[in-house]
Amino acid sequence: MSAKSSITYKDAGVDIDAGDEMVHLIRSHVQRTYTPRVMGQYGGFAGMFRLDFNEQLFKKNYTEPVLVSCTDGVGTKVKVAIDARKLDTIGIDLVAMSVNDMICCGAEPLFFLDYIGANKLDPARMEQIVKGVADGCQLGGCALLGGETAEMPDLYAKNDFDLAGFAVGIVERRKVIDGSNIETGDVAIALASDGLHSNGFGLARRVLLKGKYKLTDRPAELNGASVAQELLRPTRIYVKPVLDILGKYKVKRVVKAITHITGGGLVGNLPRSIPPEKKLTVRIKRNSWQIPPIFGLIAKTGPVDEIEMMRVFNMGIGLVMIVAPTFANSIMSQLRRHSERCWVLGKVRKGGPDLQWS
Amino acid sequence: MSAKSSITYKDAGVDIDAGDEMVHLIRSHVQRTYTPRVMGQYGGFAGMFRLDFNEQLFKKNYTEPVLVSCTDGVGTKVKVAIDARKLDTIGIDLVAMSVNDMICCGAEPLFFLDYIGANKLDPARMEQIVKGVADGCQLGGCALLGGETAEMPDLYAKNDFDLAGFAVGIVERRKVIDGSNIETGDVAIALASDGLHSNGFGLARRVLLKGKYKLTDRPAELNGASVAQELLRPTRIYVKPVLDILGKYKVKRVVKAITHITGGGLVGNLPRSIPPEKKLTVRIKRNSWQIPPIFGLIAKTGPVDEIEMMRVFNMGIGLVMIVAPTFANSIMSQLRRHSERCWVLGKVRKGGPDLQWS
Repeated sequence: MSAKSSITYKDAGVDIDAGDEMVHLIRSHVQRTYTPRVMGQYGGFAGMFRLDFNEQLFKKNYTEPVLVSCTDGVGTKVKVAIDARKLDTIGIDLVAMSVNDMICCGAEPLFFLDYIGANKLDPARMEQIVKGVADGCQLGGCALLGGETAEMPDLYAKNDFDLAGFAVGIVERRKVIDGSNIETGDVAIALASDGLHSNGFGLARRVLLKGKYKLTDRPAELNGASVAQELLRPTRIYVKPVLDILGKYKVKRVVKAITHITGGGLVGNLPRSIPPEKKLTVRIKRNSWQIPPIFGLIAKTGPVDEIEMMRVFNMGIGLVMIVAPTFANSIMSQLRRHSERCWVLGKVRKGGPDLQWS
Repeated sequence: MSAKSSITYKDAGVDIDAGDEMVHLIRSHVQRTYTPRVMGQYGGFAGMFRLDFNEQLFKKNYTEPVLVSCTDGVGTKVKVAIDARKLDTIGIDLVAMSVNDMICCGAEPLFFLDYIGANKLDPARMEQIVKGVADGCQLGGCALLGGETAEMPDLYAKNDFDLAGFAVGIVERRKVIDGSNIETGDVAIALASDGLHSNGFGLARRVLLKGKYKLTDRPAELNGASVAQELLRPTRIYVKPVLDILGKYKVKRVVKAITHITGGGLVGNLPRSIPPEKKLTVRIKRNSWQIPPIFGLIAKTGPVDEIEMMRVFNMGIGLVMIVAPTFANSIMSQLRRHSERCWVLGKVRKGGPDLQWS
C-alpha cells in the first residue's frame, strides 16, 4: 500500500505538531511557578518535587508530615469563558477550587497539576488557559508540576473543553484543622468572595444567558460591568492570608475550622466543618453583610427564591474561619492587611446541624 | 414570589440528590483501597495521607524523599466504553496511565484521585466507573484518596463523560531512575501490552468503527473476541513487578531506564528515556516479538502504513526496561514469576536519538 492512500493519526483528528507547538508556548508559564523544590526537567513523564525537610527548603520542619490532596473542576464556568472568548483567567478558578479546599485543613499547597480535555488543541487558546493556571499557582504559592492536554474531537463540541485540577499540600499532623476544638462562643469570620467564584453556573447561565441577557450586556444592577465580566471574575485565592494567620499564633490553636464556600452555599458547607457529635452550629447575623449585586440580578431575573439562592451560590462569602473569640479582632486586622474584606458573620451556639439565623 | 414559580438548580440540570446517592454507592469501592496511611473520613473536603516515615508504615525509610506526580486521561477510549455500555474497566485504564508513568522514575505510588465530568451523574453508571478506578488502585498499590464528579449537561452530550486521573508517589532521591547510567551493551527488555491500552483510539475508532465494523462484530482476525472486547481490554498495570525488581537488587543500580509506551509508540517514547547527551540509542530486534492481531486488523482495514502504526500504537509492547546485561536473565525470570510476558527487545548502541532496527 502507498503512504498517500493510507490514514494517519492527523486524518483522524489528532494533530501532534500542534501539540508540540503548545508545549513550547506554555513552557515559560509553567517554569515561572517553579520553586527550588521542583526537580528534573520541564517535559518529563512525571513531575518531581523534593520533600527534603533536612535541607530547609521548607520554612518549618515537619515531624509527622501529612500529605493533603484535592481535586476539582470549574463546572460550566468554562462555557462562559468559551462563549465570551476570554480564557486567561479560568485557570485561576481551577487552582482556586482545589487550594481553597486544601487550606481548610491547614495545609500548605506544594504543587498542582492540570488536565485539559478539548475539541482541538489550538496552541494559542491552550496557552491562555495555562497562563491562568500558572497565575493561580503563583497566587496559591504552589508549583505547576505537570499537566495533560487531550484532543478529543468526538467528545467535545467545537471550541469546547473541560478542566480538572489537582493539588497536593502538606500539614503537620498535630496541626490539622478539623473542627475538633470548636466551642460555644467561637466567632465565625466571613471573607468576602469575588462574585460567583466557580459554583452555581448551571443555574446562573440558565437564568441570565438563555434568553434574557447577552454576555456583552451591562445591566444597570452591575454598575457598569458586563454580564461576562461579572460571571468570569476569578475565584479568590485565600492561601496567603490564611497561611499567614495559621503561622502567626504558635501558642494555641486559635483557628478551629475553615470552610470554603462552594456548591451548596453557606448552608451546605459551613455545617460540614463542625463535627456532628459536637451538636454545635453557627448563628448567622443575617444583616452582617450586603449581598453583591450579581446575586440580586440572578434572583430577580429567574426568579430564584432566597432559600434556593442560599443553597446554590456563595452570596458574597468565599471562606469562613471559626476562631477563638479573643483572637477574632486580631485575625480580622491581619486579614485586612492582606486586603481581604472580612466581618463577623456569627457565633457558635448549641444546636445544629442546620445553621441558625438572627 | 412563590417557590413554585421559581427556578431551582435541579431545573437547570443539576441533581443534588442523585449526587448524594452516587456518593453512597461508591463509598465501599473507595474504602477498599484505603491503606493504614489514609487519614480522616470518607467524604471530607480533602484527602489526607500520612508520610510518617518514623512509624514504619513505609517498608523502607526515606532519607531524601521526592514526591512524584503524574496526570493523564484515557483519550477517546471512553467513547468506546460508552458506546459498548461497558464502564467497569475504563477506570483501570485511568489509573494505569498515571501509575505506569510514575514507576518509570522508580517511584512507589501512594495515592490517586479521579475527576469525572459527565452529561449526567447517573449513580449506577458512576459506580461502575469508580469500581474500575478502585480496581486499578488496588492493582497499582495506591489509595483512592479523593475524587470529583461534575454534572455538566451543556458540555457533555447525552451519555458522554470524560475522565482525568492524578497519581502521587514517592522515591528516594538517590534512587531516581533517569537513564543517567545507561551504557553501550545494556539490554532493553520488553513487557507485553494487553492490546491497545489507552492510546491511538482516535485512529483505531476511525478505522474500525466508522463504517467497517460494529462493536459486537467478531472478525476472524480477533480469534473469537468482539471488537469491543478487544478495544476495551484494560491497560496493564506494571507497578508490582517493577517495584519488586527495583527492591531486589540493592547492591547496584541494575535498572537504568524504564519507559511506558503510550501515544507516540515505541519510536516516540523509548528515545525519550535516554538522556540526549549520551548519544546512545536502542537497536531493536525487529522480529523479537509477534505483533498482536488487533494491530494487524487496524493496519489492514485502514489501511494504515507500518510507520504510522509504530508512531501511534504500542504494537504489543507496554513497557520497556533498560537493564545491566548481567542481570537481564534474572530480571526476566522475576518478571515471568509475576506473569509478565517479556523478551529481549534489543541492546543499547551508539547513535540516536532515533531507534535503530535490525
